[in-house]
Amino acid sequence: MYLGTPGQIADERITLSHGAGGRASHDLVEGIFLRELRNPMLEPLGDSALLAAGRRQLAFTTDSCVVRPLFFPGGDIGELAVNGTINDLAMSGARPVALSAAFIVEEGLPVADLKRVAASIACASLRAGVPIATGDTKVVERGKADGLFINTSGVGCVEPGVVLDPTAVRPGDRVIVSGPIGDHGMAVMAAREEVKLDADIRSDTAPLHFLVAKLLRATAGVRCLRDPTRGGLATVLSELARGAEVGITINEPAIPIRPAVVTACDALGVDPLYVANEGRLIAIVSPDATGTALVALRAHALGREAAVIGEVTAASPGQVRLGGGSSEPRVVDMVAGESLSRIC
Amino acid sequence: MYLGTPGQIADERITLSHGAGGRASHDLVEGIFLRELRNPMLEPLGDSALLAAGRRQLAFTTDSCVVRPLFFPGGDIGELAVNGTINDLAMSGARPVALSAAFIVEEGLPVADLKRVAASIACASLRAGVPIATGDTKVVERGKADGLFINTSGVGCVEPGVVLDPTAVRPGDRVIVSGPIGDHGMAVMAAREEVKLDADIRSDTAPLHFLVAKLLRATAGVRCLRDPTRGGLATVLSELARGAEVGITINEPAIPIRPAVVTACDALGVDPLYVANEGRLIAIVSPDATGTALVALRAHALGREAAVIGEVTAASPGQVRLGGGSSEPRVVDMVAGESLSRIC
Repeated sequence: MYLGTPGQIADERITLSHGAGGRASHDLVEGIFLRELRNPMLEPLGDSALLAAGRRQLAFTTDSCVVRPLFFPGGDIGELAVNGTINDLAMSGARPVALSAAFIVEEGLPVADLKRVAASIACASLRAGVPIATGDTKVVERGKADGLFINTSGVGCVEPGVVLDPTAVRPGDRVIVSGPIGDHGMAVMAAREEVKLDADIRSDTAPLHFLVAKLLRATAGVRCLRDPTRGGLATVLSELARGAEVGITINEPAIPIRPAVVTACDALGVDPLYVANEGRLIAIVSPDATGTALVALRAHALGREAAVIGEVTAASPGQVRLGGGSSEPRVVDMVAGESLSRIC
Repeated sequence: MYLGTPGQIADERITLSHGAGGRASHDLVEGIFLRELRNPMLEPLGDSALLAAGRRQLAFTTDSCVVRPLFFPGGDIGELAVNGTINDLAMSGARPVALSAAFIVEEGLPVADLKRVAASIACASLRAGVPIATGDTKVVERGKADGLFINTSGVGCVEPGVVLDPTAVRPGDRVIVSGPIGDHGMAVMAAREEVKLDADIRSDTAPLHFLVAKLLRATAGVRCLRDPTRGGLATVLSELARGAEVGITINEPAIPIRPAVVTACDALGVDPLYVANEGRLIAIVSPDATGTALVALRAHALGREAAVIGEVTAASPGQVRLGGGSSEPRVVDMVAGESLSRIC
């Protein structure tokens, strides 16, 4: 359980909570990395940094994938690494141009596993139309890693006129989610040996840049985009509410979620709102653009089940309130504790 | 000992040789990654990939730092990660614009160590004038990593008119090294608990982009640049000789090397030609530009001990021959076996 002061690291040693994507992760980033490395590109802590290159604006992002196990229903570490970085670029409104892939391999990894991952990366790269431009391979001794870690960084071009920024969010804006939540996290949990689930749940890992391009072409009313990965829907909405200094009210029954995911979450005592997604986005859109945005999203295979799930409010700035269901209304916060570690 | 066929992976499992930067590493990259991911940006396998962004050419590179121990005389993993990626950009003739920093942290790492590394990254970034624009942090369970791994990727702008390409190398070109070799690798070896050396050897880790800018401003006769990191001088020259299909003759007594490094290498039975450097470059320059290049390099603190160490030949394409010393002339190849693992 996390008990620190925001922005301060109370612990003497790094714990799994620091990697869970919630409050402890934020405190680590703000208390150590931002404090030391502060600069105008880094400070927004967005999915990508924005750089000026001549008259073009570039997006630049990095992500290490440490998912366990390496292969799970619906995907593997390679596909996840490619899609994850493409999505970080897409959430900034950038067209992905190229990715890097850097492998840290544990001595003893079967060469067949590495070949399978490389083939999966190739397939994901081809599907997305984004080449792997550069790479690196390091090998560490047996027992000094866990099979394979992959870092993918990415460069994209921000289309002229596109500005996606949490500070543009206004009361009255609607919250849209592009599809059912919780599939990725529960697929990975189910693939772990220690967990036995009957349900057939597959990761939702997918590249979202085509869906985003369709959405941004359809309407100029998109305020900002986020992919609810580590920490899940609740954590990302909490970050948005804090960042934009607004309240967010969510109509819980409107959140799309598959019955199998609900069952699996119940069985494991996990709240699906905190479970990672790898092929979903949250869009905050102006009220008048909501209909157009929904139509655009639903016209794409990856947004077929898009739904309006809530609204931005002037009241309760920084808070995300859930209501509309059979249970009492409640306030949700960023994920605390270890949650599901090594889910991406 | 490596006994495979070039471009083929004979082993069933990944070994430390695959990470040593020599033949086995090449076969891994060519036999798995290049085979699956082949595209025009990746295929040159240069220090950076070159991307078109509007009318500008961008350089893009990635490198994971897995050095052990995290702190060593003359540097640490953070400084090494920053300088290493800056140098990969500089070797492509690019002006570094921004870096990413992605941390994989082992549960239990002292927070003080992470703070020290972050401060070191900040210092190296400030010294080089290249900001950390974006980052990522993952935590893995105790025993699933080794304290800390850092991936740094980088984006740079290639100055108009600059083309550095191994295929431009011609017989008669001179080989220049910017300073004494072997300091980094031996400093790391000396810092490892299992090795006791009396000598005071410090890593040469340094950002080379200012030195490169000075050199490229001084003369248009630079054919290509390489930093002799993993695998050392011999491996990088072998790669160049193969890539450019030329021979290279090295005058061994001309290679600058500190007496303490010679002593330490002798004590450990290590050939300094295969020891990693992190603040040195090799420049292949046209014969008529050699004098100007040497003067430009020696005018900068990081190139004060620059020396011409050899010449490109039409004879013996693909081979690097060492002579001029008291011992018999010999042919050197890429590093084989495990060499010094986790040196960068």
